Formats: sequence, C-alpha cells, structure tokens
Amino acid sequence: MIPEAVLTALRLTQAVGETAQHQGLPQPPLEWPYDPQATLIPLPSINDLNLPAADLWQIMAQRRTLRHYAEQPLTLEELAVLLWATQGVRQVTKRPATLRTVPSAGARHAFETLLLVNRVTGLGKGIYRYLALRHALLPYETEPEIAQRLYRACYEQDHILTSAVTFFWVAVAERMTWRYGARGLRYLFLDAGHVCQNLYLAAEGLGCGVCAIGAFDDDALNPALNLDGNTAFVVYGATVGKRAPRPPE
Amino acid sequence: MIPEAVLTALRLTQAVGETAQHQGLPQPPLEWPYDPQATLIPLPSINDLNLPAADLWQIMAQRRTLRHYAEQPLTLEELAVLLWATQGVRQVTKRPATLRTVPSAGARHAFETLLLVNRVTGLGKGIYRYLALRHALLPYETEPEIAQRLYRACYEQDHILTSAVTFFWVAVAERMTWRYGARGLRYLFLDAGHVCQNLYLAAEGLGCGVCAIGAFDDDALNPALNLDGNTAFVVYGATVGKRAPRPPE
Repeated sequence: MIPEAVLTALRLTQAVGETAQHQGLPQPPLEWPYDPQATLIPLPSINDLNLPAADLWQIMAQRRTLRHYAEQPLTLEELAVLLWATQGVRQVTKRPATLRTVPSAGARHAFETLLLVNRVTGLGKGIYRYLALRHALLPYETEPEIAQRLYRACYEQDHILTSAVTFFWVAVAERMTWRYGARGLRYLFLDAGHVCQNLYLAAEGLGCGVCAIGAFDDDALNPALNLDGNTAFVVYGATVGKRAPRPPE
Repeated sequence: MIPEAVLTALRLTQAVGETAQHQGLPQPPLEWPYDPQATLIPLPSINDLNLPAADLWQIMAQRRTLRHYAEQPLTLEELAVLLWATQGVRQVTKRPATLRTVPSAGARHAFETLLLVNRVTGLGKGIYRYLALRHALLPYETEPEIAQRLYRACYEQDHILTSAVTFFWVAVAERMTWRYGARGLRYLFLDAGHVCQNLYLAAEGLGCGVCAIGAFDDDALNPALNLDGNTAFVVYGATVGKRAPRPPE
C-alpha cells in the first residue's frame, strides 16, 4: 500500500494556487546576496580548458554509481567543469532569468550549490558556495567539525568522508514558489534530478564517479549548513571522486 | 512567503517511516504485467545502430529547451535511442533489480514510460508503453481522441500536438515506497529529473529538441492514461521532435 503521507503530499502539491507573482510581488533575486568585498576564488572558464574526449553515447552507457574513490584529488579545473555542467550560466535574459546547462521549470533555477571540499588541489577543506553568475567560489561560514557533522546528518554514509567533494543542492524555495506556488515543490525535486544527472555524466567524462545522496536527516543537515529548512533546504546531494583503476574483467 | 502546502508536503515526506519492506512484504514486480501473447514492436539495440558523433561537452553546452519542431518524423531507431537513454536496462541483478542508463534511489526504478506517438516512422499514432526489460513497445489501450485529451490535460501546450512524440513517466509508487516509505515521493521526482535530463542530452545528440512538461492537471491526465492517480500517476512528461534548421546567427 502507498503511505498516506505520500498521497497527501501529492495532493498538496497538485495545484499552483495563489502565488506571489499573481499578487504582484517582485521576483526574488537570482541568487543569494554576498559581501561584494569578499575574496572570491575564480574558476577557469570551460572554454579555456582542454577537456578529455568524451562520447555522449559511451558516457551514458558506462555511467554507474561509484561510492569508493581513488586517493587522487580533483583539480580545480575538474571541479570547475562539474560546476559548469550542473549549474553553469549560459545567459542572463532580460526578465531577468538565467539560462543554464540544465533546464529548470520556467527558468526559475532555484538552487544554490554548497560544496564540502575534502580533496581538491588548491582548495582548503571546508564548505564553499558556487557563485554561478560569477563562475567562482566563495568560502561559506560553517563550524570546524563540519565534515563529521554532515557525515552524521547523512546517516554515516562513508563516501562523504572519502570522496574528493560532496555537492549539496539547496532549494531557495521562494525562487520557485514565487511563480509556481505549491506545485513548485515538485519542480524543485525534478530540477535537482536534472542537475544530478549532468553531474553523473560530466564526472564520468572526467574519469570520476558519483554517488547521489537522497537519504539524510533534514533536521540535522539543514542546520549544519546554516539553512532554516523552510525558506532554504537541501533537496539533494552527491559525492564525487576519481575512479580507481578497474581490475581487468 | 513559502506556501504552507509546500512546507507541509516537505515534512510529510521527510521520514521513511514504516515500510512494506520492513513488514516483510515481497518486493513489487520490476514492471507492470502484460499479456505474454501480445504482439510487441521490437526496437533495435543501441549496439546495432550507427549513432551520430556527439561530444558530451558540446552537447551539454548547446542543450536548450525546444518547443517548435520540424515536420520531419522521428525514425524508430531514433526513438529506440531515446528510450534506451531514459530507461534502458543494462543489467538485471540477483535481487532482482535493474541497473539502467539512469540512476534511481536504491535501484528502485519505479517508472513505466508511456509514449504519445504522433510522427514516428513505422508507428501508427496512439499510445505505446515501453517495455524496458524487453526493449520493445507494446500498444497501450486508450480512447481514440487521446491526443486531444492529453493536450487539454496539459493546459493546451501546443507542442504536445506538434511534436513527434511525448514521453510520460508514470510512477508506480509502490516500487519506490516499498523500501523508502513516505520519503520515496521525493525520490520519484528526483529520479524523473535524471531521466528527463538524459532525454534532453540524447535528443540533442540526435538533432532533436525537448520541452519538459511539469504543468498538467493530474486529475485529467491520469485518468486519460488509465492511471488511478494514487498507485500510479504521471510525475513528468516531455515532448521531442526534430530541430528545424536554425537561421544563421
């Protein structure tokens, strides 16, 4: 039998209902604010990188979930490619709205990307925020024991500690619900799926592997990332690391 | 402000809760049953097709939503590629579970794919079901005026009538909630996002374009596809068609 909670949640998110847009309220900003004086870590443009040859069909065929990673760190260039593939901004339209490497319902693009960096060349351990409009990283304030805390919030999934980097996609709910109201919740999860699939494929193309993380304790994970769990909450996560060489089959 | 329905639905789907698996109930079947005597329409294997060269990075960079399509039909071979990319089965494990071209929470793969075929070489108009384990199509019983009915259920989005084919991903909820209980609803939408992103990329690689469909009247769309809206319901859709040649920029 289907849990009653599933059916109720499905009903609750069926109709758009009254929205902030209908009420004439202004569109929320395209991204979280940040201190304009902050020192950013610039990322190389995808156009300036020598990307490894990657055949779409081959990559799709060979993609699989990877939980055990090589010790080798990710380079900053490789991380830049993964960030571009998942949330890279192609254009800012007049609305304004962003067009990105992934589709989003009504081009709402309601995510902020937070990274738990463990093993990336040139980056210290800790949490960083991806500034998609600038294609740069911004250090994100968190407590010193953050990796352990995130690991516990995700029910002690080892790959959070052993991967090179963990992506957390944070829904800034208002950016979606402003237009789509209650139905917007469905779109947040659909959109996160788009993003994660591009991460899987881009990682595969770089000789890396991914393990998506849907299982976590919202009430532990959100506060650990300074999110209130209502206006902003984690919808999805994923670990990434280099593939260890496979033994011959 | 965030609609109260969003916050309630988020809470309702937070915990896994009691599950059918915990209760020792058997795992639901990997797919819907079908008449073993039915005449199937076999699809060519991806390994037997000459696929156009497609660079992963280029495809990711150029992907965009397309709502206006060329008159040219899709070939059955092209449709086979799109079905493989979205739900193709790579392996059936001992559990049993399927490993596919897309990831799914706990390899639950809770979808059935229904296609509204409008313009595919060798296929009559109508609804077909993709049998992922057989990589074949099965005609799906529906009423004669089905295209118009689906079009209206999707708030008269023109591209449903003008595309070559419309994909509808149906969640067979029990296949997910058996293990993941209430939280499974989130995973159904995340998984549908994975699937749709692969459709976007595969279509781009074939010279086609996609427009995802998240806006529909569940209470009209589900009955039109013979779904009860509780144990089985549409989570996402997408139209596909050939790209019209672009004017030089």
